[in-house]
Amino acid sequence: MTNLIKELRESTGAGMLEIKNALAEANNDKDKAVEILRKKGAAKLSKKADRVAKEGLIESYIHPGSRVGVLVELNCETDFVSRTADFKALAKELALHIAASNPLYVTIQQVPAEVVEKEKEIYKEQLKGKPEEVMGKILDGKIAKYYEEVCLLEQPFVKNPDIKVKDLINEAVSKIGENIQVRRFARFVLGS
Amino acid sequence: MTNLIKELRESTGAGMLEIKNALAEANNDKDKAVEILRKKGAAKLSKKADRVAKEGLIESYIHPGSRVGVLVELNCETDFVSRTADFKALAKELALHIAASNPLYVTIQQVPAEVVEKEKEIYKEQLKGKPEEVMGKILDGKIAKYYEEVCLLEQPFVKNPDIKVKDLINEAVSKIGENIQVRRFARFVLGS
Repeated sequence: MTNLIKELRESTGAGMLEIKNALAEANNDKDKAVEILRKKGAAKLSKKADRVAKEGLIESYIHPGSRVGVLVELNCETDFVSRTADFKALAKELALHIAASNPLYVTIQQVPAEVVEKEKEIYKEQLKGKPEEVMGKILDGKIAKYYEEVCLLEQPFVKNPDIKVKDLINEAVSKIGENIQVRRFARFVLGS
Repeated sequence: MTNLIKELRESTGAGMLEIKNALAEANNDKDKAVEILRKKGAAKLSKKADRVAKEGLIESYIHPGSRVGVLVELNCETDFVSRTADFKALAKELALHIAASNPLYVTIQQVPAEVVEKEKEIYKEQLKGKPEEVMGKILDGKIAKYYEEVCLLEQPFVKNPDIKVKDLINEAVSKIGENIQVRRFARFVLGS
């Protein structure tokens, strides 16, 4: 309960009493309370997003020629680590890798099920005529290959294709001793 | 028809004959033809997006401290203009402005109708008790104000709040003599 009040103070900037009243009115439903606070004019617009606490940094890479650009958020646990040279270097490597290797997702879990189904359909068509038991194995291999193409963590690291990007991150994790996660990225290609 | 073949050559990298056959099979349906080409293993994955022709550049801005970052695509008509100092300067100003002013959309047209409805509902609640005819006017004013808060082109320019961002762009258009458009942007705030 105290946590909820603290969270709402940070996210809305409203006063303690206003928040308590809003929470009571909303039966402790956070989203409803925010709406009540906004209706009362007490909450400040869209400040919330800027205040949630997570450490790390935002890095960018613009490829020479300015036709490809990348923005990436790399998270760690403490502000201290985010200011180390090792962490900054990792963020730079990742931004460069994303520019070069065009991932569509960070993790395998983020690939939508429909997309995987569509891929499977295409592979099945390519493999038409093969016996069932061979088909299954080849299909698994092809899907694994697809993940290696589109998921950042599964991609071979552009500067050293013997390792995957997740291995590069894991190396940094064991060196730095903190959990490190690629939270999100954006990659713009001119006119596409 | 010839255009379609050319487009498919660029987007799939498949051979001329393969494309003709695929188009015939697909009754000239482009998307179906691409799928056929892919099934035949002739089309290369997701190259298409990188090839559509539009000029301009991708610019980034990382705010000191690396907790806020922006990626923006600014389009113009010719490659020549994209390399001019004026155009590059405009892209830089826009990236900086986006970092500072946190727009959620580029244009008014991009604000989803549900979002506008939700805003109106909140304003109506705030104005409860006012006479109908006053209400309408105030509501229009509040919505216009909301657009100024969340739409990049409607925002007051951070370095000169007497003009809007669209005025800044229009100045550049008349100076440069080409259509200039902000195509898209991404703005990451650490942990949000």
